[in-house]
Formats: sequence, structure tokens, C-alpha cells
Amino acid sequence: MSAAKTVRPGKNRAPAEGLEIVIAGLGLMGGALADGLRRQHPARISAFDLNDEILEQALSDGTIDEGYSDDQIGRRLASADLIWVCLYPGATADFIRKWMPVLKPGAMITDIAGIKRSVLDSVLPVLREDVDYITGHPMAGSEKEGYGGADRKIFTNRNYILVPPDNVRPERLEFLRQVIGSLGFTNIVETTPENHDSKIAYTSQLCHVIASALIDGEDDLQITDYEGGSFADLTRIAMINAPMWSEIFCANGDLLTEKIDGFMDSMNRIRDLISAGDTEGLEDVLSQVRKKRIAMEIDRINKHRAAGK
Amino acid sequence: MSAAKTVRPGKNRAPAEGLEIVIAGLGLMGGALADGLRRQHPARISAFDLNDEILEQALSDGTIDEGYSDDQIGRRLASADLIWVCLYPGATADFIRKWMPVLKPGAMITDIAGIKRSVLDSVLPVLREDVDYITGHPMAGSEKEGYGGADRKIFTNRNYILVPPDNVRPERLEFLRQVIGSLGFTNIVETTPENHDSKIAYTSQLCHVIASALIDGEDDLQITDYEGGSFADLTRIAMINAPMWSEIFCANGDLLTEKIDGFMDSMNRIRDLISAGDTEGLEDVLSQVRKKRIAMEIDRINKHRAAGK
Repeated sequence: MSAAKTVRPGKNRAPAEGLEIVIAGLGLMGGALADGLRRQHPARISAFDLNDEILEQALSDGTIDEGYSDDQIGRRLASADLIWVCLYPGATADFIRKWMPVLKPGAMITDIAGIKRSVLDSVLPVLREDVDYITGHPMAGSEKEGYGGADRKIFTNRNYILVPPDNVRPERLEFLRQVIGSLGFTNIVETTPENHDSKIAYTSQLCHVIASALIDGEDDLQITDYEGGSFADLTRIAMINAPMWSEIFCANGDLLTEKIDGFMDSMNRIRDLISAGDTEGLEDVLSQVRKKRIAMEIDRINKHRAAGK
Repeated sequence: MSAAKTVRPGKNRAPAEGLEIVIAGLGLMGGALADGLRRQHPARISAFDLNDEILEQALSDGTIDEGYSDDQIGRRLASADLIWVCLYPGATADFIRKWMPVLKPGAMITDIAGIKRSVLDSVLPVLREDVDYITGHPMAGSEKEGYGGADRKIFTNRNYILVPPDNVRPERLEFLRQVIGSLGFTNIVETTPENHDSKIAYTSQLCHVIASALIDGEDDLQITDYEGGSFADLTRIAMINAPMWSEIFCANGDLLTEKIDGFMDSMNRIRDLISAGDTEGLEDVLSQVRKKRIAMEIDRINKHRAAGK
């Protein structure tokens, strides 16, 4: 499958100009990345996806130049400069392991898996010395799913976490940071696999568990008659991609259950104050919470403001 | 304190046209109600607030015609057609009890207290037969606080819960519904005090407890480096008005602790599946959650669409 297509030059700097790019997986994130790369970079973009209909759609809307749903993608991977694997975590590791032997020397391969330890455990043993692999995690999303919900705008003013190897070549890391920055991300953070999995267990996975538990426990389908915004905000992510999150929750089970237990301790602490009618004790806890959350918000605003300059 | 001010005629129907209105408490909600009433209704609006600076501000920006911070408000209450009490729940009951004797026959008094059983228990024994009292709850809010954050736009496409007495006069209920509808609310629900307190314990109070517990358990003030939207959505309401929510949590303690316990049961159920690495069992639960949340969303959209016509 292929379509001739004049690529639109980006408004901003285009660090991937003239490169051959392969995106594996045209779901919500892969589709948004393809959309953003297409818009910012005069580059040749090929995609791999098991679903032919999605490839047809991406070809016809001009987001990609070529689409493959089978091992023919190997030919494109063999000449690609930049490969962005946007599959579920297990499939990401499988894809990288399978195609590592065909990659061209000097190729950059990255992925967006929501868990890093297990993916790295699987990939590092087969990683070639002449290929640059920097795994990452775009901290963006949508309650929409799949290519139909893909939109580069979800990246604007978001965080992107990179987990570079110890022996990363600085100029290759800088190249990837520039490509990511060109997509609209304003805060690119570097960390270790362990710290990524621990922080994400809290900011993302625990939040999805909470949203799911809130809905699991409520059977009134007309409950939104009584909501004023909080319920919608807390449970929007309960419109959840069940297979993907089940895989992620279990793959990060050790750290996630730790975070769940810590959260439950805080729930019990607050519950006991309510049960005892201890308005003053409760007010102390909530005042501390308020201060902490405001400090977090100020840090966030400062970082994205600085990074956006 | 008073200011002459030509009231702007509302663009829509103005069921409170020509009335004398008193708003007690110019906080976030009272201020937004004053703003909305001012915009929609050519009416005389007076306000009571303990804070003189806020009254000065509301006078100077034209939101109110008169402001009182002491018992002089009694004179305005004595001639008011519509009284909207926007204080904390305990203060709401105290205010209504104190001023009930001076209200003019046929006056309509309403409030916005976030808990209904305790307020009604306090008010009903002193309620006069020639005064209409219909307690309510605008399901809107903001992480902003006080008059500075007050904006009538927070009411657009929101729910308003009314808890009418058994012997409500239908034409008076209809009058209040029309005033509320003129402010932008698109779904006005009527229910009992018990059902209000039970539903709100879930949609609002439990959500605030969860957001607070999430922040209580996290000490990394730079945690937003690792967030992608979910964390912000789940914890925005942790920038909480500590005194107000402490009062509300404790006043509704029996029902709220029930909801907390139900939520914790669901958390434990999901935690156990994660801990056991039961990806399939987890996927079953999350698929059900997804279906339920989508059904709730469809019901919400349909109701506000129908009501907005």
C-alpha cells in the first residue's frame, strides 16, 4: 500500500527533515505522532498496523506515505532513520526484538510503552551497539481510542519522559529531544526505568485504578443527574482501554500495589476522622493537602512556562 | 452601603423581573448567582456578607445594588421576594432560623447547602406556613474560591438539585425552576433530602475525599513532571476549601463513610486481581467499568441536550 504525497513543511524547526520514519502501531498515540511528524517535518513516513482499514484511512488523509500490515514492513525498517514503536508494552518488546537484526546502522529506535522495566529487560539483551535505543513515554492521552481519536494537539504543553541508556550518545539524545519538542511537548524529563515505573504507577496507573473502582462500585446509570464536575473529572478515564490497561497494571504490579496501599492508608486516615466527626483534625489534613496541591501546580506552571519559551 | 445602578435586562425570559432579591453570602456560589441574576433579571439585588471589602467590590462592579455586613440586612429581608442563602451548611440553617420571623408573607427562601438532612432538621421546626422554602443544590463549582472566582458561566449546562417539601405549592416550585433555568442550568432534578445526601456523598464528597487522599499520600512536589492529564483531573479539587469540606464531610458522615467503604471494596477487588497478575479477570472488570461509564455519559448527554432545548 502506498500513496504519493507532498509533505507539508513544518512551521517550526524540523530536526527530522528528509528522514525516513517508521511508526509501528497507528492507534491513538501512533496516529497522533504521525499527524504531528507529518505537520512538522518534510520526511517520508511509513506505518505498520495490523488493521488494513486504518492504514487506508491514514494514507487517504495524507498522514502517512506508505502502510504495511505484514512483514513487508521489514523493507522500510531496514532503511529507516527513526522508528517509533507505538504498540502495547508486550507487543513493543516483541516488535523491537524481532526487527533489531534488520535495522540500519545508526538508526534511532524509540517507543512509548507505559512501563519501562519489563520492556527494557526484554529489549536490552538483543540491542545492537550500532543502533540507538531511547525508550520514552509521551504523557498525553484522550478518552478517545484508536486512530479515529488521534490528534497531534493532545501533545501541546505536555510532559515527555525519556529513559536513555547509561551509554547514550549525547547528540542522539539531543536529536530525539528536538523531534519531541517540535511536536508540542514543553517539558522533557529524563529518568531511570525504575523511577519511571514508580512515578507513573502513581500519576497514571493509580488514577486509572481509582476511576475504575469509582465506577465499579456504582450501579445507578443516571447518577450524572447529581454530578457537578468532580465526578466527571475523576471518572472520564474509566472509559478505559481494558486490554491495554490490564496489561500495564499487571506488568507494573509490584509498584502499583504499593501505590494503591499508600493511597488506601490515606483514605483510611481521612475516613477515620470523618467517622469520628473530628472536623478540626480533618481541616488540618485538608489544609495541608491544599497547600501541597497548590505547590505542585505552581511547579507545573513554572516548568511548562520556562520550557515553552 | 448602597449604589444606584441601572440593571441590565436579561436576554432570556426574566421570571424574577421586578422582584426584590437578597443573596446571603457572596462567596464563589453566591457571587456567581448574583452575577447571573443581575445579568438575566431587572431586579433589585441586595447582599449580606461578613466581609465589607467583598461587598464594596460587588457594589463597584455593579453586581449588587446594596450590601450589608450586619443585622441591617433584616430590613431588606423583610421586603424580599426571593432570598438565596449561600453560606456554609451550619451557617445556612442559623441564618434561616434567625430571620424567619421577619420574612414577608409569600416570600420564597432557598439555599445551596451541600447537605440537606441536617439543614432541614434545623429549619423545618421554625418554618412558617406563609413562607415558601425550597432547598436546593447547584451542581457547579470551581477550584477558585470566594467572590474573586465567582462567574455565572460556571452554571452553564449544569445540574441543579431541588429538594421541595411534601406540601410544596406547584406554582412556587415552577417559579424557582424558571429562575434557575434562566441562569444556564439545563437539568433540574427533584429529590428527597435522604437521596440528595446519598447521591452527593458519592458524586461530590467521595470525589473530594479521594482527591485529598491522593495528595495526602504523595510528598514529591515535582510529581507533575510525570503527569499526563489524569493526575491533574483527579486532584484539581484537592485545592480544597478546607473548612467548608470538613464541615460537609462530618455532617454527612454516616452516608459518606458508607460510600468510602464501598469504594474501598472495589479498590481491593482490583488490587487483588493486579496482585495475582490476573490480566483476564482484570480485563473483565475494566470492560464492565468502561461499558457502565459510557452508558452514564450517554444518559448525561441526552438529558442536557433535551433540557437545553
